[in-house]
Amino acid sequence: MIPRYSRPEMTAIWSPETKFRIWYEIEAYACDAQAELGVIPKSNAEAVWRAKDVEFDVARIDEIEAVTKHDVIAFLTHLAEHIGADEARFVHQGMTSSDVLDTTLNVQLVRAADILLADMDKLLDALKRRAIEHKDTVRIGRSHGIHAEPTTMGLTFARFYAEMARGKARLQAARAEIATGAISGAVGTFANIDPYVEEYVCEKMGLRPEPISTQVIPRDRHAMFFATLGVIASSIENVAIEIRHMQRTEVLEAEEFFSPGQKGSSAMPHKRNPVLTENLTGLARLVRMAVVPAMENVALWHERDISHSSVERGIAPDATITLDFALNRLAGVVEKLVIYPDNMLANMNKFKGLVMSQRVLLALTQAGVSREDAYRLVQRNAMKVWEQGKDFKEELLADAEVTAALSPAEIEEKFDLGYHTKHVDTIFRRVFESNPL
Amino acid sequence: MIPRYSRPEMTAIWSPETKFRIWYEIEAYACDAQAELGVIPKSNAEAVWRAKDVEFDVARIDEIEAVTKHDVIAFLTHLAEHIGADEARFVHQGMTSSDVLDTTLNVQLVRAADILLADMDKLLDALKRRAIEHKDTVRIGRSHGIHAEPTTMGLTFARFYAEMARGKARLQAARAEIATGAISGAVGTFANIDPYVEEYVCEKMGLRPEPISTQVIPRDRHAMFFATLGVIASSIENVAIEIRHMQRTEVLEAEEFFSPGQKGSSAMPHKRNPVLTENLTGLARLVRMAVVPAMENVALWHERDISHSSVERGIAPDATITLDFALNRLAGVVEKLVIYPDNMLANMNKFKGLVMSQRVLLALTQAGVSREDAYRLVQRNAMKVWEQGKDFKEELLADAEVTAALSPAEIEEKFDLGYHTKHVDTIFRRVFESNPL
Amino acid sequence: MIPRYSRPEMTAIWSPETKFRIWYEIEAYACDAQAELGVIPKSNAEAVWRAKDVEFDVARIDEIEAVTKHDVIAFLTHLAEHIGADEARFVHQGMTSSDVLDTTLNVQLVRAADILLADMDKLLDALKRRAIEHKDTVRIGRSHGIHAEPTTMGLTFARFYAEMARGKARLQAARAEIATGAISGAVGTFANIDPYVEEYVCEKMGLRPEPISTQVIPRDRHAMFFATLGVIASSIENVAIEIRHMQRTEVLEAEEFFSPGQKGSSAMPHKRNPVLTENLTGLARLVRMAVVPAMENVALWHERDISHSSVERGIAPDATITLDFALNRLAGVVEKLVIYPDNMLANMNKFKGLVMSQRVLLALTQAGVSREDAYRLVQRNAMKVWEQGKDFKEELLADAEVTAALSPAEIEEKFDLGYHTKHVDTIFRRVFESNPL
Amino acid sequence: MIPRYSRPEMTAIWSPETKFRIWYEIEAYACDAQAELGVIPKSNAEAVWRAKDVEFDVARIDEIEAVTKHDVIAFLTHLAEHIGADEARFVHQGMTSSDVLDTTLNVQLVRAADILLADMDKLLDALKRRAIEHKDTVRIGRSHGIHAEPTTMGLTFARFYAEMARGKARLQAARAEIATGAISGAVGTFANIDPYVEEYVCEKMGLRPEPISTQVIPRDRHAMFFATLGVIASSIENVAIEIRHMQRTEVLEAEEFFSPGQKGSSAMPHKRNPVLTENLTGLARLVRMAVVPAMENVALWHERDISHSSVERGIAPDATITLDFALNRLAGVVEKLVIYPDNMLANMNKFKGLVMSQRVLLALTQAGVSREDAYRLVQRNAMKVWEQGKDFKEELLADAEVTAALSPAEIEEKFDLGYHTKHVDTIFRRVFESNPL
Repeated sequence: MIPRYSRPEMTAIWSPETKFRIWYEIEAYACDAQAELGVIPKSNAEAVWRAKDVEFDVARIDEIEAVTKHDVIAFLTHLAEHIGADEARFVHQGMTSSDVLDTTLNVQLVRAADILLADMDKLLDALKRRAIEHKDTVRIGRSHGIHAEPTTMGLTFARFYAEMARGKARLQAARAEIATGAISGAVGTFANIDPYVEEYVCEKMGLRPEPISTQVIPRDRHAMFFATLGVIASSIENVAIEIRHMQRTEVLEAEEFFSPGQKGSSAMPHKRNPVLTENLTGLARLVRMAVVPAMENVALWHERDISHSSVERGIAPDATITLDFALNRLAGVVEKLVIYPDNMLANMNKFKGLVMSQRVLLALTQAGVSREDAYRLVQRNAMKVWEQGKDFKEELLADAEVTAALSPAEIEEKFDLGYHTKHVDTIFRRVFESNPL
Repeated sequence: MIPRYSRPEMTAIWSPETKFRIWYEIEAYACDAQAELGVIPKSNAEAVWRAKDVEFDVARIDEIEAVTKHDVIAFLTHLAEHIGADEARFVHQGMTSSDVLDTTLNVQLVRAADILLADMDKLLDALKRRAIEHKDTVRIGRSHGIHAEPTTMGLTFARFYAEMARGKARLQAARAEIATGAISGAVGTFANIDPYVEEYVCEKMGLRPEPISTQVIPRDRHAMFFATLGVIASSIENVAIEIRHMQRTEVLEAEEFFSPGQKGSSAMPHKRNPVLTENLTGLARLVRMAVVPAMENVALWHERDISHSSVERGIAPDATITLDFALNRLAGVVEKLVIYPDNMLANMNKFKGLVMSQRVLLALTQAGVSREDAYRLVQRNAMKVWEQGKDFKEELLADAEVTAALSPAEIEEKFDLGYHTKHVDTIFRRVFESNPL
Repeated sequence: MIPRYSRPEMTAIWSPETKFRIWYEIEAYACDAQAELGVIPKSNAEAVWRAKDVEFDVARIDEIEAVTKHDVIAFLTHLAEHIGADEARFVHQGMTSSDVLDTTLNVQLVRAADILLADMDKLLDALKRRAIEHKDTVRIGRSHGIHAEPTTMGLTFARFYAEMARGKARLQAARAEIATGAISGAVGTFANIDPYVEEYVCEKMGLRPEPISTQVIPRDRHAMFFATLGVIASSIENVAIEIRHMQRTEVLEAEEFFSPGQKGSSAMPHKRNPVLTENLTGLARLVRMAVVPAMENVALWHERDISHSSVERGIAPDATITLDFALNRLAGVVEKLVIYPDNMLANMNKFKGLVMSQRVLLALTQAGVSREDAYRLVQRNAMKVWEQGKDFKEELLADAEVTAALSPAEIEEKFDLGYHTKHVDTIFRRVFESNPL
Repeated sequence: MIPRYSRPEMTAIWSPETKFRIWYEIEAYACDAQAELGVIPKSNAEAVWRAKDVEFDVARIDEIEAVTKHDVIAFLTHLAEHIGADEARFVHQGMTSSDVLDTTLNVQLVRAADILLADMDKLLDALKRRAIEHKDTVRIGRSHGIHAEPTTMGLTFARFYAEMARGKARLQAARAEIATGAISGAVGTFANIDPYVEEYVCEKMGLRPEPISTQVIPRDRHAMFFATLGVIASSIENVAIEIRHMQRTEVLEAEEFFSPGQKGSSAMPHKRNPVLTENLTGLARLVRMAVVPAMENVALWHERDISHSSVERGIAPDATITLDFALNRLAGVVEKLVIYPDNMLANMNKFKGLVMSQRVLLALTQAGVSREDAYRLVQRNAMKVWEQGKDFKEELLADAEVTAALSPAEIEEKFDLGYHTKHVDTIFRRVFESNPL
């Protein structure tokens, strides 16, 4: 966890305090269920809830763990310090540490997913508003970094919206995958504990019972969860790269909002760098790096080995905290992105009219010129624009072979921008009105 | 693609012949739609279908591409050689190469997914049958590679079934993600082609129209697809590792089927190595390595750059072919796996009765012994079994502190295996009767 | 291996023919050594060399393997078909399959490394020539994609030269790492074969004996090898990204060479896309994806498991073939890259004089203005250039607070380009004359 | 950074206090060099050293950065608070932030490498001692997890020693790679600062000047550094997996040291789990996950973008801290590993005499039996041992076809263990006396 790339709400999920609180709730609910089943005395179950408002002492638990070298035993020992050794003696009965640890991890991941889903809503909201705002702001579309044909800024925002909406749907699926708990004992057979306890505790903790567990909840669920975060991070990178390109000095079609006190460079005061989106590019790599170890965690030995644990101590907080930060940062960037429509037009006209070449090619073909010839005609005029700065329309009008096929009015009509934006509304309907997935 | 790890059905999807066939169908259907719209003459659209039964000449197309350095143009040129340059002149009109390439890739991925789904059904079927067969075959459950408590071989198969069933559901989702096509032109604006063409062609090719594309279909879809394959591969590794452990000389609870002519080693003729599951462990790594580059492919520049293309030429065939092979190999391994129930019992009893220690611990606690004391009592007797090869039950019966709390009959009862398997039916119901996800 | 991204010389290393040839040589040299030791009859060793000029029949060996399910036994059986079963009976004596397989793999990797080293020399040569050619071609340096201060195109080439020279040194180290062979028997103890055989064969095959092996050569060596390829691939991406940026329509400081017959786009004939460097960006991802599985291969079980084998069947040819292709492609791109010095100047002057702001800032500080004030003075004039298209020098000359600290001549002097290039020769000396690593 | 997997010495390198201290030293030495060159007054350079014993106030610097949004400016502002604004006004002159940041990062990485090298020495020392201690402790070698031929525990330790010695040599190379500094200004041209300053500061900080930098030190160096850590982590995993296998209940040839107070399981008091080496397996994944993002960091835009920075804020501390912890943990595990030679012998004899099958095979061949026949003879007797628990030697002695070729004494001699260990001294000499790389 890198403090500068973290938000308190998400960080709190991964604090020892939150962890112990969830442990406590699981143990307490399990006691309730055990008491209901008559396995343990009701009074002992009730006694556990006396610690309901206790803030557990992390330092004390660590101290005990230093001796026992076992975290759950350390916690239970500490709990007994609060509610009395005698009252505590049925706590954790029939359970194994992993029942607590794994169910807790999934509670944390579910909560993290809920924050991330809210983040995505914020981002989707920003993208949608900017899309509508710039629905008709014409800019040049580029393939290979080279001018292609006109598009609009709104379409750019709209496609990021659609991509993030897919990301949200994936995250919802990943959240559902991870929303299971297990209280099934040492090897998952419920030998020492009735499946009812699992059902009861899961229901209380907002989870479903894991249909079949070993000592642990199967790690393919977690692999899928982190893989999903990796895909979303890659989509963040996608938006970030677009903005970084737009802010290049030579392009300057947009800029990240630059607050008054901000300094761009210690040496070059005129600089306004797209540092937020560059940062997002790096954060995407950080989130993505959780994917492979999460997959390596799937193949545990027999009913479990503990190799996954240290990995998850790293990636679970790190990937969720970083992604939470990144989604929020990106929402802010999109929200406040300064757009320069004039520069968009100026860029589009850098090579005068050249971006209309495909239309002319088609028109020639439709006027009966063979595809090969049409291509040759268009290319020879295009090259004059490219190399000598000529105006494409004028060159076409002066090319006898071209005018033999197309009238001046027909040529003129090919340079109408509206031709390129005529289906923007259709696309917007697809993205914003129907299910965009 | 590694020939020895590939099956013809999947390999065929990625052959140049298949690719050109799909290109052809897309172009032909697009002509139909264009003719319907009145954009091109009906006769020209019909003429394209004259090549319906042609097997395109891959060598000839390569030859043309060597000159044009553009694969789609090379194909179109070759198509014209079949149906006549004049009839062919409206083919591809208003389209850009990526319309064909990207839609084709997704057709291929969808077909690959369909094969993989059938593979998974085969594997699920094998796992289910072996699970039922060995529902009550008792073996020791192990955590950390150390004996824990009894479980059954059927539960092991059942949990792999549940894991693969999740994998199948994920693959169905990934298939749905990837089942889109785009015919939206150079920058995705439909400037030169009506959205109807996209709708028409997609419907014919078994795809949905991409709600918003640029020159290409957004690569987050592909990233999710390959990430899903990576998770499934990791689950294969999980099963493979279990079998490799079971086949260890010291464990020998199962063996891969060893066909008569097969030689285990050029040097040690007695050896029967779990080479298939070791191989699957490696194949899992190969599939998984597609995940990160697929994610790196998401952030393309503006309306597209072509960096993703070479990556996909590698990973699309390689990951699907390898996973197809691996799923089939694993299905075969599971189907024919030789199980040794006697060895399972022998292993379980290696440290006589020790695996029942948790039951005794619980019984002591419930008999009023403090958790701390119970732990100490169990541990001191357990250590004698562990270190001196004593029989756990006998030691307990001879321990005055233990017998002060538990009667001989109570102690005896703790060593009943049925205690551990009493919920197997419940778990099987969860896995096989209700939705196991 | 993707045919379109492969070169015959490298592909040949990974052909079955080459593999069997190396197997043969290892077996034959081992017989020589065994005969020398008196372990096998000299005549049998000599008999093996009768197959010296045989091209082994791959199809026949595959046929035998289909029965034996063991590749080395299949080969030995086939070899016996050539030299006679009786003469062949001492071949492979005391050896285990891995002795042959692992030593062969390393011979192949060493040969692959030699080709890659030659490729790097070609690339280094091209970079050096272009660096010298454009040593003084001034262009704007950019940080964050934003204009910073002037640099030269030669420095850009020179830094890629230095980076690739480091890559070459790393590859030499990786080659040395991998240049070991092992003929140490089933578990590496030389129980059935004298270490002399290993020494003899390794010397003949251009390898060093592995100091301590198990059944296999330790895989940390291979992990290091593929990691090194991954770093070199990343450096290729670095150069490729630079060129792609330079070729952007708005920047156009360089273009990949565009051969006469080449078509940029099926739709937009004016387009010249940086497809080679985009392709290299993708190829870098393909090479890099070998790194993680190669590392996952290190931890084999006990004296070996065979999980690494399938991985290496994939990544060993794929990564070396792809990198070989990429290095050659990049050498060609650099060699023929079309540079536009005029555009470089035009870009630099897009915001008139603004790139000199740091010099002015320093001059003000040295003239006694506080750093804070100097920063404020520079920034307020810079903003007028940035936002209103003013000329930086003129604004400074008109700013009384500035001219209070600097005379017009002093201001004028700050706009001298030579100021920025005065250390280019020093840097070139560092890079090209001394050890640049 | 995960507190439970970190050691203070390494963590300290990455504290803000250490970072600011290094920043300070770089700035102060740069002033010395600038004063020597006559660029700034000597008294100002001297004034900077007045802060020599200051512990910089991290909270205060953060406070300033919250306003300026620029960390180096924040630090310089704070420095001025200590030495006076007037005296401080030449600090950082001609430098750019990255001069400080990048040189600092490399100082930190070099120091981290030095700790890691010391860790490796500790581990090497432990491995060597245990290797010598168990040079002749015979155990069965295993390939594919299946018994192969005898080896010794000393050879196992010796090969891990050789592997870690290679790791150390690689780390030394990686340390050399990363031991460069750069003070070359905004785009690396030394426009505003003399190369002498770079040389002077680097020499003082224990670095070499980067031959050619841009605004930043090229990231291929860092990619190589982290790749090297990833390979070492994979070697740690290799040792960890071996120990985990040895500690399996059915194998039990070794155990991690189990301290008196330690509890293996909250439920099963008899359990001694190899939790340290399982943990190391996970830690290896954590270190390895830094490799790919470090490679993705290489291709920065033009003279730099800042995407690498957030990645390095994560991976630089995390990977070095985790690896440092892992190396120390592993050294401790190896040091104290409890070895069970008796269990090794018992395991080896599980299938009586079977592991000698290769010797018998060879003997038969050398006695004139064809390889095919010898194989058949050995296999048929081996199968009786495998399937019916017979004694291999007795079966051979009772097989007329075998005794036709080998006398009883000859058969007897094949079961001598010394045969397998006769070259152990040779291998030890290779590993410990000569250069083992």
